[in-house]
Amino acid sequence: MQFELKTNDPKSKARAGVITTDHGTIETPIFMPVGTVGTVKGVHQSELKDEINPDIILGNTYHLYLRPQTKILEEAGGLHKFMNWDRNILTDSGGYQVYSLSGRRKINEEGVKFKSHIDGSTHFFTPENVMEIQRSIGADIIMAFDECTPYPCDYGYAKRSMHMTHRWLKRCVNHLEKVPPKYGYNQTLFPIVQGSTYTDLRKESAEFIASVGAEGNAIGGLSVGEPAEEMYAMTDVVCSILPEDKPRYLMGVGTPINILENIALGVDMFDCVMPTRNARNGMLFTAHGSINIKNKKWENDFSPIDEMGITWVDTMYSKAYLRHLFAAREMLGKQIASIHNLGFYLWLTREARKHIIAGDFAEWKDKMVKQMNKRL
Amino acid sequence: MQFELKTNDPKSKARAGVITTDHGTIETPIFMPVGTVGTVKGVHQSELKDEINPDIILGNTYHLYLRPQTKILEEAGGLHKFMNWDRNILTDSGGYQVYSLSGRRKINEEGVKFKSHIDGSTHFFTPENVMEIQRSIGADIIMAFDECTPYPCDYGYAKRSMHMTHRWLKRCVNHLEKVPPKYGYNQTLFPIVQGSTYTDLRKESAEFIASVGAEGNAIGGLSVGEPAEEMYAMTDVVCSILPEDKPRYLMGVGTPINILENIALGVDMFDCVMPTRNARNGMLFTAHGSINIKNKKWENDFSPIDEMGITWVDTMYSKAYLRHLFAAREMLGKQIASIHNLGFYLWLTREARKHIIAGDFAEWKDKMVKQMNKRL
Repeated sequence: MQFELKTNDPKSKARAGVITTDHGTIETPIFMPVGTVGTVKGVHQSELKDEINPDIILGNTYHLYLRPQTKILEEAGGLHKFMNWDRNILTDSGGYQVYSLSGRRKINEEGVKFKSHIDGSTHFFTPENVMEIQRSIGADIIMAFDECTPYPCDYGYAKRSMHMTHRWLKRCVNHLEKVPPKYGYNQTLFPIVQGSTYTDLRKESAEFIASVGAEGNAIGGLSVGEPAEEMYAMTDVVCSILPEDKPRYLMGVGTPINILENIALGVDMFDCVMPTRNARNGMLFTAHGSINIKNKKWENDFSPIDEMGITWVDTMYSKAYLRHLFAAREMLGKQIASIHNLGFYLWLTREARKHIIAGDFAEWKDKMVKQMNKRL
Repeated sequence: MQFELKTNDPKSKARAGVITTDHGTIETPIFMPVGTVGTVKGVHQSELKDEINPDIILGNTYHLYLRPQTKILEEAGGLHKFMNWDRNILTDSGGYQVYSLSGRRKINEEGVKFKSHIDGSTHFFTPENVMEIQRSIGADIIMAFDECTPYPCDYGYAKRSMHMTHRWLKRCVNHLEKVPPKYGYNQTLFPIVQGSTYTDLRKESAEFIASVGAEGNAIGGLSVGEPAEEMYAMTDVVCSILPEDKPRYLMGVGTPINILENIALGVDMFDCVMPTRNARNGMLFTAHGSINIKNKKWENDFSPIDEMGITWVDTMYSKAYLRHLFAAREMLGKQIASIHNLGFYLWLTREARKHIIAGDFAEWKDKMVKQMNKRL
């Protein structure tokens, strides 16, 4: 993997760059749609590629390990072939899901014993086997196995957990060297900064992660319930320490406003279930504010979903029609809203990139944050 | 509306024709995808038009009257504009749904009082107001308000009900003359033959319906649980009486095999929820038999869903991937299967038409029935 830093915004810490992997280039800043179990919910691969057009999407190690299971993905020749997606894939390590989905988990230095949320069967994740699973999935960017602490988290726990995450990282790095890629292309490991909302821990973690010299670095343990200002403060501290010449990935973030604010702090990559999850609940993001399409006020508003027409659904369907689909609990409503929201998120990060390159990102960001804060 | 009979098959009663309405031509035999509440479940209008490519789809008066409601459709300028579909639409009259969805209904000579399955509110359908509602929906072909008798149905009830359906038809015809179309294009009323599974009643009903001189005629009250042989026997009796020079529509039928057998008896138009409903349950129809994609045998079958590639989903996704989507209860599975099945149904009726025109329909039909009867 290579990363070329193209432009630094003069009035913020925003950057525009290009990542190159064996599956092509990724222009940053980028939002990565989440395809938890090998599908971006409600969106055909052709729509994803041709309309939403991200250079990279996410898969999830925990979910893919349980279903369809590693052996099926190996037989398929990896996740790219299994789901028919020929661009980049990043897999998160399953750390977050083990903590959030499996109430029944036991964590110790060796790894995490957990029960499947599907059938209650017992499994054990270690830094080593999670590397092997991600080799089998075949993502281009694979994530270190970490503990994602909740919010709030007491200082002592956050510190101990962070140190264990660091020790686990060494095990990930060591083991990955022993297990070659399975499908003829390279896979790059991103380590993850932890440290909850404690500035000193975040600094220590960022310094440790930076010292590993990985080709890209991630910030985890944020967007877990803390106020946005705390998130921004932590991102700022961490970005000031992580190397300039490597991409920075802020995991699980966030609203369109969160994304722009974190781009301004030097983050290059984002992922979040919000555009698709909120879409399925009838919430649309637009450049002029958010829309609750279930609201009665849209009942006879026959104007297009979004005049901007970022994706074809925006002008093919009216607000009144989309509201009707949600009222009648029709699948098509969720499909339309998912395409709209993902299209908007990708438009937003592409626009951010254009403005960074043009040198007017900071002004544009402030204007957009104000606009997007409205409820239509 | 015009109907031109193009070809009669030499060895069966199958026919190929062309219906022309203000929204374009409909090549028959045709299968009409069901879009109950203004959406063919799980399928974008663009996919419907470009990939599945039917000349006509169905809407449902009962459902559309309850949601989004007639006034919204009027404000939208009719269902075509509301859902953004510029080809033909047929609406069934709501008779079937009043009986099947609303356990709490009271039927008398005047009409049917029923409770909404959504909120329990009370409504009253009469032949007159159902014509008005269909004017507001704006379908190209509108159906008479009838009583669809269940199976089995005792002779006395079937006879009384049929006579009432005939009286209701006169009221439909009379009232429709008084209420002009709302959107500048013509709407054609199809009356419906009833008579349960009694040959003498079916004959009497078909003669009465034929005497009305409508531009097209429908056969109702079949595919409600009776053995296929009884359905075919009734279709055969009715088709021998309904006029040759008008299209014949067999309502709510059926499996791919049912469709071919009824085409052989002289039916021109079909609709059924089966391709989409079964799709949502993981059942795929193919030219070589049906597939239960949830079956473990497909777990590591990475071959395309259907080598025939009628629609793009067939070759974009593998059986193993589709099985995984169903196992993980992912929306995309239902979407893929729906497009596949509808594509197959439309292919089947188009192929039937080609073979009727080529003069070898009967042989082809026998071969297809044998093939499609298999479980893969």
